[in-house]
Amino acid sequence: MNIIDELKEFADLFNNYIASNITIESDNLSKASFHLLNSGGKRIRPFLTCKTFELFDDNIQNILPIATSCELIHNFTLLHDDIMDNDLTRHGVPTAHSIYGIPITILSGDILFAIAFSHISNNSKLLNFNVNRILKIINVLSAASITICNGQSDDLIMSNETQFRKPESYFNMISKKTAALFEASCKIGCIAGNGTSNDEKSLTNFGKNFGIAFQMIDDVIGVVGKKNVTGKPVGEDIVQGKKTYMISLALDSMNSEQKNLVLKIFGKKQASANQIIDAVNVISNTGVADIVREKAQIYTQNAMDSLDKYRDAESYSSLINLTDFLIKRNI
Amino acid sequence: MNIIDELKEFADLFNNYIASNITIESDNLSKASFHLLNSGGKRIRPFLTCKTFELFDDNIQNILPIATSCELIHNFTLLHDDIMDNDLTRHGVPTAHSIYGIPITILSGDILFAIAFSHISNNSKLLNFNVNRILKIINVLSAASITICNGQSDDLIMSNETQFRKPESYFNMISKKTAALFEASCKIGCIAGNGTSNDEKSLTNFGKNFGIAFQMIDDVIGVVGKKNVTGKPVGEDIVQGKKTYMISLALDSMNSEQKNLVLKIFGKKQASANQIIDAVNVISNTGVADIVREKAQIYTQNAMDSLDKYRDAESYSSLINLTDFLIKRNI
Repeated sequence: MNIIDELKEFADLFNNYIASNITIESDNLSKASFHLLNSGGKRIRPFLTCKTFELFDDNIQNILPIATSCELIHNFTLLHDDIMDNDLTRHGVPTAHSIYGIPITILSGDILFAIAFSHISNNSKLLNFNVNRILKIINVLSAASITICNGQSDDLIMSNETQFRKPESYFNMISKKTAALFEASCKIGCIAGNGTSNDEKSLTNFGKNFGIAFQMIDDVIGVVGKKNVTGKPVGEDIVQGKKTYMISLALDSMNSEQKNLVLKIFGKKQASANQIIDAVNVISNTGVADIVREKAQIYTQNAMDSLDKYRDAESYSSLINLTDFLIKRNI
Repeated sequence: MNIIDELKEFADLFNNYIASNITIESDNLSKASFHLLNSGGKRIRPFLTCKTFELFDDNIQNILPIATSCELIHNFTLLHDDIMDNDLTRHGVPTAHSIYGIPITILSGDILFAIAFSHISNNSKLLNFNVNRILKIINVLSAASITICNGQSDDLIMSNETQFRKPESYFNMISKKTAALFEASCKIGCIAGNGTSNDEKSLTNFGKNFGIAFQMIDDVIGVVGKKNVTGKPVGEDIVQGKKTYMISLALDSMNSEQKNLVLKIFGKKQASANQIIDAVNVISNTGVADIVREKAQIYTQNAMDSLDKYRDAESYSSLINLTDFLIKRNI
């Protein structure tokens, strides 16, 4: 099966699990909480948890509750990030707070976060796992959540600065804000499957490198992406003033006239369509998209190398194909 | 030792533990996260966790990490509630978001919540507890967090309605929003101390009734409290438009002229000092404060009765004295 079909099949299975097992009492809160979850998404984090688990154990029913928690934590961060970043749309869909208001959306993130921990701790007997493993998984997920908050704090600070920082700061920030949950998703798949500490190292390394590459490609799409394909309008990261490696690299290679053209609308959500297209064209002409993709390729190669010892496992090819898909994607 | 001194001694011990053991990497995030914690507070929830634990086990060092998580969850809810309620002060101190802004304050609540679970799951070996008990504690705390979110959702809905609901709705809401964490704080003290399931029932009942009475007395103070004693200005709940049992009962016993005088400034934060004093006087003259205190007394009596079987334990008197202090307090 090709990876797009495999992701689709997994998303159907996973969405059914969520629909049958995760409910929220208050109707108003439920709508806001499930708003993004019901708007689509490729479910890459729970897919990673399930496929890393399947390197060791093929009973997917045992891992679904834990994979669910990864996705709930992901959604909790999106709901809150959209408020913090004052974003009115995400992938072309109105954000939860733009529909339901800020108070209930703060709360909907909070309840998803609480359910993430409740759902795992509730399912310990059902899973028939060693409780030590469950506790370790909770520890990994809560530690990752702390790291994500620190990454978002770095992002907020960097967004408020006038200058771009050196690339190291950007990579440090996305390692925390984005890669930490991919890393944790893989690590807990391994822990749940009773992998060794060496397996944990390999799969943590896989998840971290996968996550960094994922964000880098997201940043390419954030400039040149097409709204009808990705939900992301062209030039979105420019008007949102995101200090990505992609945009930083592009600015470094421009003459002052080009730079002014881009910086004039950088962080200006009210920029006109023509201004945005001009800025995107200038960035595209620098050729940095290829440079960023090539650098991301180094991370994905590192990620794939971490999987070498699992070549014989059935889910090995799923993980490799996903990584390959990730680096080539325009969506 | 009287209960005020005992609470003070405990708060000192507890605050030292927090200062030595809970740190947040990002400076900006750290300031917002610890803003309320560093502004004072009686630490009643961790006190309850420690004292219920001490009914079974006197090694307080073993319970401090868990008691810490209760207080962190409490602080997380306060930080977010103040944003949702658009409150600029809490107990006379500026709220975190009024100083640091909404984005970083959302994040500071998030990180405290994450630390609450990380801190417990990190300390499982140190505690030398049975991991089943640790997992059960995480389950109780995450379930309580879900309940608190549902309670806050009810409160937001009720705040936006024009009419007062029947008292049952109010008691249902405060059972979730306020009492659930007191209940959980006592339950986890019992679980950590390896109490029986009957002990869990007794101490859960104690915490729940304690929590409901606590909120009822808070509501009395919310109308007639004095700013220099409590940090709560007189009439605070009136101008904030809180649909408490206290205010509902008062309105029910007024003639239409008195009712108009109160409703004119109900939910109007810009009401003048004179208008507020007039409304408070009208409510005070109805005598409902005594009725609410008497009803709260029924809950505290129920709470105290749950402790009967622990009469011989050293911490029994701490719990009884705290409950007695609670019902009589003006602060």
